[in-house]
Amino acid sequence: MYIVPEAVIDGLLTRADSFQAVEAVFASMARGAARNFPVIREAIGHADALYGFKSGFDRESLALGLKSGGFWPGNAERGLTNHQSTIFLFDADTGQIKAVIGGNLLTALRTAAASAVSIHHLARPDAEVLGMIGAGHQSTFQMRAALEQRKFRRVVAWNREPSMLDRLAAVAEEVGVPFESVTLDRLGAEADVIVTILSSFAPVLMSAQVRPGTHIACMGTDTRGKQEVEPELLARARLFTDEVAQAVSIGECQHAVAQGLVSPEAITPLGAVIAGQQPGRQDETEITLFDGTGVGLQDLAVANAVLIKAIKNGSAIKLG
Amino acid sequence: MYIVPEAVIDGLLTRADSFQAVEAVFASMARGAARNFPVIREAIGHADALYGFKSGFDRESLALGLKSGGFWPGNAERGLTNHQSTIFLFDADTGQIKAVIGGNLLTALRTAAASAVSIHHLARPDAEVLGMIGAGHQSTFQMRAALEQRKFRRVVAWNREPSMLDRLAAVAEEVGVPFESVTLDRLGAEADVIVTILSSFAPVLMSAQVRPGTHIACMGTDTRGKQEVEPELLARARLFTDEVAQAVSIGECQHAVAQGLVSPEAITPLGAVIAGQQPGRQDETEITLFDGTGVGLQDLAVANAVLIKAIKNGSAIKLG
Repeated sequence: MYIVPEAVIDGLLTRADSFQAVEAVFASMARGAARNFPVIREAIGHADALYGFKSGFDRESLALGLKSGGFWPGNAERGLTNHQSTIFLFDADTGQIKAVIGGNLLTALRTAAASAVSIHHLARPDAEVLGMIGAGHQSTFQMRAALEQRKFRRVVAWNREPSMLDRLAAVAEEVGVPFESVTLDRLGAEADVIVTILSSFAPVLMSAQVRPGTHIACMGTDTRGKQEVEPELLARARLFTDEVAQAVSIGECQHAVAQGLVSPEAITPLGAVIAGQQPGRQDETEITLFDGTGVGLQDLAVANAVLIKAIKNGSAIKLG
Repeated sequence: MYIVPEAVIDGLLTRADSFQAVEAVFASMARGAARNFPVIREAIGHADALYGFKSGFDRESLALGLKSGGFWPGNAERGLTNHQSTIFLFDADTGQIKAVIGGNLLTALRTAAASAVSIHHLARPDAEVLGMIGAGHQSTFQMRAALEQRKFRRVVAWNREPSMLDRLAAVAEEVGVPFESVTLDRLGAEADVIVTILSSFAPVLMSAQVRPGTHIACMGTDTRGKQEVEPELLARARLFTDEVAQAVSIGECQHAVAQGLVSPEAITPLGAVIAGQQPGRQDETEITLFDGTGVGLQDLAVANAVLIKAIKNGSAIKLG
């Protein structure tokens, strides 16, 4: 049994590693070789915490296990991350525990990788302007991964509290890309690719603000009731997701489906595009929208990848 | 974070510790302070394995976490236990991982403790003869724990393959109690307490074989379709269980409920008896039947107990 502590993961798993792991498992899902198990999510009635599991198995990589953890709103006051997670991998041949792996940074990396994979497969090849909506902790991960997918010449960004955009401006400066805080109207009019990473319960980006040919990755909605964009935008777009069942229940698609604007059958698993089973973008005017809900298999995929690297470089603690 | 390896648990957690932990969490469930989360159980499509999780939270002990693992039928050939499980405890105040604990022996101990708790609270005080039905790996655990609950003067036992009863005979000899292999008719006619621990898909013990005043703990049925006793026996008995929802879906009660012989409302959580909310046995002629389905909170309870002891005696490995 190996332990890969949270502290050794930073710098060990690259964005390219995460991209590769997430892309591979999305394709495995589309081939029917990988499957997420039902999600458990419970308000435990203590410390206002939400606690649960996301789990699954990929027969191709033999990644088996779960991510466990949740949201502890009082953690920040203790100097801890509010989102706490740990990933457990099991030996698919014997059922024995194989590794315990810190899951906080991996969750950020796999979520960023998902939108990056969607940009890689769905954005116009000539996309030049990246639009970022939202400036929370996760936003810098999304932006760094997104910037690597096209030759972006600048970033336009919006956040309800504009001063928080400083953290994205700093990343842009580090990467060497011009950065501008803009209105949502300007963002929609200028961006070729838009990443939304909000914790919102009402639409922020409206359909009329988005021009033809845009690729949008909606990454903030992972709960019933959350919403980032106007449902009419989904009705105009070709829709892609990580897992259709989750998209229509807790993802951005939930609202458009509930309103009858979109049928679940019209939503394509991104893995089917990666695996060559379904076409991706079909022309330059199409709006493509990826609903990234976050599945357990993504967690297992990046955990498996980091475990291999941590064993190789000696940073995994071996027990027993 | 602590690691409590499987190898250090033997001898560390006593049967009395397990009894106490399971009795306490059953009462906590009845008081509404402890709750099991939905069970995940999946055929993974590899190595014929069944894999899943049982999880929950006890606000009284703050035990939070899950048992993960399953059944790998090919393990025996590799010299490993077919049932593999690991228990993960989390800090209920922060969501951080607290301990990883070998779950194989603990599962055996908590299952034995459940029937022992039922005997303690439901069997006639003057019970003298223990009947054991089934002689698999788990049967010795059930028998040892059962023998401690009353002044049993002898054991009568039955197994489809009688030669397997040798392992129970050896335990009886060690404990100093006479042991006899008998027919089911004789077992039912002589035993005051019966423990069934079979992996069976058809009734083995018939209602007519059981006399008034008997306490029966049905411990082998934990899956839809499994069955140890005739449903008519449940209709004659006062019924108790660890968790009613599980008893009627995957426990021994499933058949009697499906046939309309028993209503779910007639099944009493054993914890309600322990907590003094409901009466236990009401007279000497009543048949009491405990349907032990096995809940995640039992696993967390014994894991919590062994963690405290392992930290105290230095056998828990501390990391980070």
